[in-house]
Amino acid sequence: MGSTIALLTDFGVKDTYVGVMKAVMCRICPDADFIDLTHAIAPQNIHEAALALLGAYRYFPPGTIFLVVVDPGVGSTRQPIAAQTDAYTFVAPDNGVLSYALAEARDYRAVELREAEFHLLPVSQTFHGRDIFAPTVAHLANGIALDRLGPALADLTTLPLPRLDVTPTVITGEVMHIDHFGNIITSIGQLRWDGPDLTLQPRFAAGHTPQSFVAGKLRVILNGHQVEGVRQSYSAVESGELLALVGSSGFLELAVNQGSGAAHLKATIGDRVEVRVS
Amino acid sequence: MGSTIALLTDFGVKDTYVGVMKAVMCRICPDADFIDLTHAIAPQNIHEAALALLGAYRYFPPGTIFLVVVDPGVGSTRQPIAAQTDAYTFVAPDNGVLSYALAEARDYRAVELREAEFHLLPVSQTFHGRDIFAPTVAHLANGIALDRLGPALADLTTLPLPRLDVTPTVITGEVMHIDHFGNIITSIGQLRWDGPDLTLQPRFAAGHTPQSFVAGKLRVILNGHQVEGVRQSYSAVESGELLALVGSSGFLELAVNQGSGAAHLKATIGDRVEVRVS
Amino acid sequence: MGSTIALLTDFGVKDTYVGVMKAVMCRICPDADFIDLTHAIAPQNIHEAALALLGAYRYFPPGTIFLVVVDPGVGSTRQPIAAQTDAYTFVAPDNGVLSYALAEARDYRAVELREAEFHLLPVSQTFHGRDIFAPTVAHLANGIALDRLGPALADLTTLPLPRLDVTPTVITGEVMHIDHFGNIITSIGQLRWDGPDLTLQPRFAAGHTPQSFVAGKLRVILNGHQVEGVRQSYSAVESGELLALVGSSGFLELAVNQGSGAAHLKATIGDRVEVRVS
Repeated sequence: MGSTIALLTDFGVKDTYVGVMKAVMCRICPDADFIDLTHAIAPQNIHEAALALLGAYRYFPPGTIFLVVVDPGVGSTRQPIAAQTDAYTFVAPDNGVLSYALAEARDYRAVELREAEFHLLPVSQTFHGRDIFAPTVAHLANGIALDRLGPALADLTTLPLPRLDVTPTVITGEVMHIDHFGNIITSIGQLRWDGPDLTLQPRFAAGHTPQSFVAGKLRVILNGHQVEGVRQSYSAVESGELLALVGSSGFLELAVNQGSGAAHLKATIGDRVEVRVS
Repeated sequence: MGSTIALLTDFGVKDTYVGVMKAVMCRICPDADFIDLTHAIAPQNIHEAALALLGAYRYFPPGTIFLVVVDPGVGSTRQPIAAQTDAYTFVAPDNGVLSYALAEARDYRAVELREAEFHLLPVSQTFHGRDIFAPTVAHLANGIALDRLGPALADLTTLPLPRLDVTPTVITGEVMHIDHFGNIITSIGQLRWDGPDLTLQPRFAAGHTPQSFVAGKLRVILNGHQVEGVRQSYSAVESGELLALVGSSGFLELAVNQGSGAAHLKATIGDRVEVRVS
Repeated sequence: MGSTIALLTDFGVKDTYVGVMKAVMCRICPDADFIDLTHAIAPQNIHEAALALLGAYRYFPPGTIFLVVVDPGVGSTRQPIAAQTDAYTFVAPDNGVLSYALAEARDYRAVELREAEFHLLPVSQTFHGRDIFAPTVAHLANGIALDRLGPALADLTTLPLPRLDVTPTVITGEVMHIDHFGNIITSIGQLRWDGPDLTLQPRFAAGHTPQSFVAGKLRVILNGHQVEGVRQSYSAVESGELLALVGSSGFLELAVNQGSGAAHLKATIGDRVEVRVS
């Protein structure tokens, strides 16, 4: 049984890029087990990738190594890095793609991937996924210590957080993701059920304390549509009906039961969402 | 070498849902081997998933566990179940998605997944794939006995069978699936070659006995188009030509050699197909 | 740790065809490790598959077995084959799909897959991937010797090479591939950086000796657009700007930094590309 390696890229599945990275890795570490998180991040969309990683990493076994390649700056001066928390290791370009996941770690160490002995030579200037990130991940899976990969890095690039403003009467957020089903996932969370009521422990708004709400009295507003109440499951309303609910990652979602919320509301990433507390 | 786990969902590959289910499973059962059947079932299309499972399950090694998540009723009263035949185990919502595959088993046992110790807590009301089905599959892969998962269930939900009416002069079926190549797969089968002739052992019409036909004398009619004769392979006609043939799963197919039968005939799922015996 | 099996097909991921092939293989060889190269080759496009294999195979560990199924002639007289070089084994229909990769081997042995004991019986006339190629790959992974699969074959089908004409003042090639990002990969290569200059070792033009160029003085012409100079990385120009560069496989590429070169130049596979040496 080898290490679990999780892959997250914007490479798509049309080309052989992902397969080639796996080939490079299994040449170095034959025991690696690969799990694809997604390769359908929009090209060069660092923010989308950071959110996808944030929502998924915690479900993996401790020891998992994440290969995260969304890399618009490949061949520029941005640095290739590896970062290690007490549970996981992440290998990626230093462009902020790790910043949401690392913000949840109590502590982490990071290095710049400068030691050529862990790269595939000659290193191209256009595919560091194959030549730097994949071989680094495989060497880590083989047990190479983080500090052998290159010098320590003190400050990593961070992305601005998704919008989340909380006042006693209005919570303002934005559309963070639209999933395959058309469910609209907002930046308003973590929401937790506390009996019939909801508790909000703001995830993207520092310094806020948890706050409780009567779920049935909330009104959610997006693109001029208003939904009354927050529900527990899609099936709380009839098929085809719009609802607001707490999604599986604890964020407020707008959805149509057995339909597409995004089509219904013409929602796109970044749209403003408001929750009014009455 | 661990258990083989086969995955069949309508989750798509844009989000991290499938990867998260695999993460949950490999955390519980590090030796699991995953094989993706497809994640491109149309959202909430139980019938399509049941047919896909029916066509594929028999090729897997005995002992394979199938994780089947097409679950429009998640969070409602529909029950999460596991069902075991003498060769395979299936984990799914009880909405009929297993009914075609289970109909082929001599016998099976089923349980309701009620024991929380085999779930990922707290269980959400929107993603039972992650919180109930995946951990159950992983515990089964670790050797947990079926009856520890919850109480036995006597009656599972079944789907209506695809249309198949057989008379001595006309066989009537429907378009069951249109594949990636545009091949039109109908509900008319199992068809088996018996020398130059065809034998039909009706799969979706109970109580019928096998019947033989002269392949060359059959006429297949779909959306006003008529094809003479049933062939053995796509290459029996010129490139670009329409033909009827026995597909790789034993069902009657309409296809265009090196082209798309579905585009040619403007066929969609559910269209009526007739075979006239002259 | 079992053999690595790499898969390359035009099957798409909508149907269960790829999963069924893996099921057949893991039934025969439970230790097999699968790496998907791509299943998004355009239906029946042998040339595209041959190029995808050529660009990827060398990154795999020695001993890897490649299952290559792009098979417009399934059920016709084209032969199913296996070919072995000193490092790799390839299993495919004999339609030229292996010819680019095999042209790079010093030597190889090939056999026709005629021995039914290594097939899944009864063999259909429409899905040799499942019935002939997959079981053959699995038996090879189990250590079965090549010559047990069937009689030796002397001459395999070859595809015409992509266009590459080299004169002292003009290099003429064609668009070979357009990737997921819209990068336009041409047949002009292998190009290697030699300090600030470029060396061309013609890959698709036999009998040519390596030739050196001043990268900055080259002009690349496609569909009436002209680009001055060949760069080392996408980030050598501003975001949104067109450039020519040496891609990660050593072929000349036209691209837009953080955009789509193909959309910008309305490029399609087969378009003529010229490099003028001034």
